[in-house]
Amino acid sequence: MRFTSEQRLDDGVLEREFTLGEIPGILWTPASASASASAPAPLILLGHPPLGLRRMHPRLAERARHAAADGFAAATIELPGSGDRPRWAAAERARATLRRAMEAGEPVGDEIIGAVVLPLVERSVPEWRAALDALLSLPEIGGPVGYSGGVISIGILLAVTEPRIAAAVLFAGSLVPAAMFEEARRVGIPLHVLLQWDDEGNDRQAALDLFDAFGSQEKTLHANMGGHAGVPRFAGDAAAAFFARHLR
Amino acid sequence: MRFTSEQRLDDGVLEREFTLGEIPGILWTPASASASASAPAPLILLGHPPLGLRRMHPRLAERARHAAADGFAAATIELPGSGDRPRWAAAERARATLRRAMEAGEPVGDEIIGAVVLPLVERSVPEWRAALDALLSLPEIGGPVGYSGGVISIGILLAVTEPRIAAAVLFAGSLVPAAMFEEARRVGIPLHVLLQWDDEGNDRQAALDLFDAFGSQEKTLHANMGGHAGVPRFAGDAAAAFFARHLR
Repeated sequence: MRFTSEQRLDDGVLEREFTLGEIPGILWTPASASASASAPAPLILLGHPPLGLRRMHPRLAERARHAAADGFAAATIELPGSGDRPRWAAAERARATLRRAMEAGEPVGDEIIGAVVLPLVERSVPEWRAALDALLSLPEIGGPVGYSGGVISIGILLAVTEPRIAAAVLFAGSLVPAAMFEEARRVGIPLHVLLQWDDEGNDRQAALDLFDAFGSQEKTLHANMGGHAGVPRFAGDAAAAFFARHLR
Repeated sequence: MRFTSEQRLDDGVLEREFTLGEIPGILWTPASASASASAPAPLILLGHPPLGLRRMHPRLAERARHAAADGFAAATIELPGSGDRPRWAAAERARATLRRAMEAGEPVGDEIIGAVVLPLVERSVPEWRAALDALLSLPEIGGPVGYSGGVISIGILLAVTEPRIAAAVLFAGSLVPAAMFEEARRVGIPLHVLLQWDDEGNDRQAALDLFDAFGSQEKTLHANMGGHAGVPRFAGDAAAAFFARHLR
C-alpha cells in the first residue's frame, strides 16, 4: 500500500489517495486520529456502484466526512473494470446486455443479472479483503470494521466471508442474482438495510424478499420515499447511528 | 379539564393525572417547562392499545420520559370501554368474536375486523381532539403536535381530520379494516411507521400495503426483527429523532 497524495479538508479530515498493487483507493481519517493516537479509529469501508472513483468522489467524500464526524475512518477502492483500471470486456458486454433488456422493457432473467453481478463480486471481494489487511496495518486505524452501501451483492459476500466486518449498511438498490439469496441466509452480522420505495431500477418485492432472507438476528429495514438517488439526509443520519451503536 | 393528582418523577418530569369530563388522562411535562416558561413545549399524544391506562402506565411513562428528555410534553387519555371507563358491551362482543376466530385459526374477514376497530375509532377520535383543545389551552404546552403509536386506525383518522397534528409515528401492529386504507391515502403529514417483521398477530403484507397507501410525501418504514412486543430500544431512538426533526 503506497500513499500517492494527501490533502487536509477544511473540517480537518485527512484525505489520502493510495494504490494497493494496481488498485487505486482513498482513505479518510478524522482530525482526531493520528499515528500516535492511543485509540485507533474504527473503519468504515465505503462501497459504491461501478461508475469510477473519480465520478463517485463527491458523494464518497461526503459520506467519509459524515463518518469522520462520528470518529470513524473511511476507505474505498476502485472496482475492477472501473475508473482508471483496465477495461474488462466481458463485464462491459454483460452490462450492455442488461441495459438493452431493461431499456426494451423485457423481463430481466436471473442469467442476465448473474452475468453482470457474479463476476464482479468474485473479483471484488478478495480485493476489499486485501485492502482491509493493508488498512488495518496502519497504526491510526483499528477495528471493528463496518461496510456501507454500494453493490449489495459485494456487501453480502463480504459479510459472509470476512470475519473482521462487524456490521453493515446495505442499499437494496441493485439487482441481486438468485445465488446471492442463498448467501444472504448465511449472513449473521447486524444489518441496516436502506430501500428506496419507488426505486425505478429495482424490484421492491425482491428487495423485501432479500431482507427477509438475511440470517442476521438484528436486521432493520429503512424504507423511504423517492427514487434510486433520492435517499433523504435523515436516512444517512440513521445509518450513522447504527454504526455508532455497533462500531464503538 | 381538571387535574386530580401530581407527582414529580426523579428526572424532574411532572406527571399529572387529569379528567376531561368522564375521561381520565395523564400529562407529562419536562422539568424545563413551566407555566411561566417563555417557550411552551411541543406536545406528543401517546396512543396505546385498549388495555387500560393503569396497565399501560409503565410503558407510557417510559415513552413520556423519553419525550421529555427531548423537550416535549406528552399526554394520553383512556380509550372508551377501557380501564375505569364504563364497559362497552358491543365492543367487548366484537373483540370476543375476533379473538375466537384468531384462536381457531380461521380467516379473519374485514367485517370482523371492522366491527372491532371502526366503532373504537369513531368514538376515540373526537375525544382525542377534545383533549387536544384542553391541553393546548395550558400555557406550558404549545404546538406543533405529534401523535405516536397505539391503534393505528386512530392515528390514521387523527392525521386526516386534525390539522394541529404535524407528524405521526404509527405502529403497524394492529388489524386495519379496508375502509382505513382509503383514509390512509388522504394522510399528508410526515409519517414514521414501525413494523415488527415477525409480529404474530399481524399480516406483514397488509402492513406493507398500508405503508404503500399512505399519501404522505415523507413517509419512512422502519422494520425490525421480533414479535409484537419486541420493538428494539434503538427503534424508539429513531422515532424520537423523527419527532425532533418535525416538532422543533
